[in-house]
Amino acid sequence: MQILPNNQLLGATVALALVAISAAYIYCTSKPKAIKVHGVLLSTATQRVLATLYEKELEFELVPVDMEAREHKKKPFLSLNPFGQIPAFEDRDLKLFESRAINKYISHKHADKGTRLESGDMKQKAIIGVWMEVEAHQFDPAASKLTWELALKPVFGKGTPDKAVVEENEAKLAKVLDIYESRLAQSKYLAGESFSLADLHHLPTIQYLLATQVKKLFDSRPHVNAWVADITARPAWCKVLALQKH
Amino acid sequence: MQILPNNQLLGATVALALVAISAAYIYCTSKPKAIKVHGVLLSTATQRVLATLYEKELEFELVPVDMEAREHKKKPFLSLNPFGQIPAFEDRDLKLFESRAINKYISHKHADKGTRLESGDMKQKAIIGVWMEVEAHQFDPAASKLTWELALKPVFGKGTPDKAVVEENEAKLAKVLDIYESRLAQSKYLAGESFSLADLHHLPTIQYLLATQVKKLFDSRPHVNAWVADITARPAWCKVLALQKH
Repeated sequence: MQILPNNQLLGATVALALVAISAAYIYCTSKPKAIKVHGVLLSTATQRVLATLYEKELEFELVPVDMEAREHKKKPFLSLNPFGQIPAFEDRDLKLFESRAINKYISHKHADKGTRLESGDMKQKAIIGVWMEVEAHQFDPAASKLTWELALKPVFGKGTPDKAVVEENEAKLAKVLDIYESRLAQSKYLAGESFSLADLHHLPTIQYLLATQVKKLFDSRPHVNAWVADITARPAWCKVLALQKH
Repeated sequence: MQILPNNQLLGATVALALVAISAAYIYCTSKPKAIKVHGVLLSTATQRVLATLYEKELEFELVPVDMEAREHKKKPFLSLNPFGQIPAFEDRDLKLFESRAINKYISHKHADKGTRLESGDMKQKAIIGVWMEVEAHQFDPAASKLTWELALKPVFGKGTPDKAVVEENEAKLAKVLDIYESRLAQSKYLAGESFSLADLHHLPTIQYLLATQVKKLFDSRPHVNAWVADITARPAWCKVLALQKH
């Protein structure tokens, strides 16, 4: 007589546990993520933020922005970034924009999670800061123009590359890469022996340019070439590239 | 018999004290400063760093760079900044370049000295970070081109302003200032109620542009106008301007 109630109890317990597990699963897979990135996968600035989130092993939701419909130039997107540019970023009630500022926030807030992208040492932090500014002010202006002319114009059906713009910016980028070559002969990464945000911020434009004639500028400089091979092979970056294949 | 020796002792003590005070004075006024800024007073990037040093009430030595002799493009300056640009910065054995990175280092290292230019609060720090990027990527490209065309070309005898460049960049700056106007209607400074590096970084180009036709773009926007009046009147900034009058 005792066997039946026990069996019933067991059955009820198992059923309850299954219900609880299912509920937890549904909740976990459907609950809104705290971190939202509003952007598109083709955008270099969006990719820069996604690479950081993957390096930090953080969960996030990518909220697509309809660029063709110019959604980024209208409300409600303008309440996220009044300059109407992607990406925009939300971490619960905090709203940020400008990819490099977003990345600094992520790497600072989650300093001890995933890859360490900044340094706790004041001098090392300052040196990373210098090379982050170098990326933004020396490398990116030429690299971004070349990315647009040679990689993105064809994708968006915006005509053929402007030869004069390409030539001018190849010459500028070559000069910058000469300095990178000297720098990378002294240290494995731009700001020292560890990968940092200063390296990461280069990834999206470098990846696009590797599929263009600009590849030769990287290939012909051995230390730059090794650095490019190293940073583009990082698992976090490969995850960003994998997203684009879906 | 005891009076004379006592008098001699007193005299000797006073003489020794005077020698010690003089030696300390000579040492203090002539000893090399820990902080050195290699740059020139006309340079906006140099001014940006000097403004921060004055806000932080730090002593420094300004080491002039002979730009006409292209000293910044030669050794030994290139060991301070391989990109051959001013300013370069030394804090004892630490060598930095890129004005915005230098300023972040100074404001971080001396967080509790002089004006607080960053925030200890993670969210507020992130918001300051966003508006620092806005200055660098939205405001500065247009403001710097206008500063060169309208303010610096005449000083360096480099011809007359290029009207097309001026027109294009006035239009760009006007759009940026429209967004600043909305922002500054909500908060006294760009990143909130406190002055921060995000505001400070604008000072050099704004100061130059106030002496040009571009002044109307600031004057015609009431909140921008009040902000400009406020930040350009800061004692630390006035010290930078005073340096130029010597």
